[in-house]
Amino acid sequence: MTSSPAPFAAPASGAALEEGTQLTPRFDANGLITCVAVDAHTGEVLMLAHMNGDALALTMATGEAHYFSRSRGKLWKKGESSGHTQKVLEMRVDCDQDAVVIKVEMGGTGAACHTGRRSCFYRTVPLGAAPGPDTKLGFTGDTPRFDPAAVYGKPHDH
Amino acid sequence: MTSSPAPFAAPASGAALEEGTQLTPRFDANGLITCVAVDAHTGEVLMLAHMNGDALALTMATGEAHYFSRSRGKLWKKGESSGHTQKVLEMRVDCDQDAVVIKVEMGGTGAACHTGRRSCFYRTVPLGAAPGPDTKLGFTGDTPRFDPAAVYGKPHDH
Repeated sequence: MTSSPAPFAAPASGAALEEGTQLTPRFDANGLITCVAVDAHTGEVLMLAHMNGDALALTMATGEAHYFSRSRGKLWKKGESSGHTQKVLEMRVDCDQDAVVIKVEMGGTGAACHTGRRSCFYRTVPLGAAPGPDTKLGFTGDTPRFDPAAVYGKPHDH
Repeated sequence: MTSSPAPFAAPASGAALEEGTQLTPRFDANGLITCVAVDAHTGEVLMLAHMNGDALALTMATGEAHYFSRSRGKLWKKGESSGHTQKVLEMRVDCDQDAVVIKVEMGGTGAACHTGRRSCFYRTVPLGAAPGPDTKLGFTGDTPRFDPAAVYGKPHDH
């Protein structure tokens, strides 16, 4: 389940993993960790994506968010085609080191989502009743800031 | 890659998935979606965990966070052993419906992390240099609010 591509090492122990100061990311069977990108100023969750070892190392080195696209099977720099870059002001890792949070300043129109919206989380899920045929998502009012078809030309993940 | 356990259905199309009002979660090969829990009042990211269909349905129905533990292979209600429940004030789903954000009020001491800390993201990762042997994580000052050994008795995931 866990592999450690260079330059990353495996943790010496469970205690070191959780209480130590060594970065020992636990990549999953696909070589990925999860990354949550939040707005550095408002704290709003913008998107969730994945990083392989190269994406994590590049993000750390450059301070610009890089991810690994599962659908395209390749490393990408966020904003490379759309201009919606993410300047990383802070990165945090979680207790068991299989996830990071990055606090970012968005470039371009400020839209992190490939649909053109600020956040990928633009729909609410109703609470207080078991899900069923009548369950309806609500829109938050986070409307598209650009036309994805014009920017990407075709369907695109994030 | 995608399965749809009852009561959830598969999306009718990519457009319906992203722009529709039907909840059609895209569970992964292990039957899970990712959940990011944030503090409902401060917006701070508290933890990242996973939900299977039952955990998602129970969270929606009860307004209390339920997850699926990958290490223990079972559904759990957050706080069932520690008292650190999560009352869900809002749930959002992302563009491709493989992740949700929940805005929660913590019970107990307010610690979401199994290490006793408010947040699982209690260490910072340095930026501006490629990772290497000298890379050192920093602690944020989010110190344990309870003794995990006393509460759980043994190592525990989240």
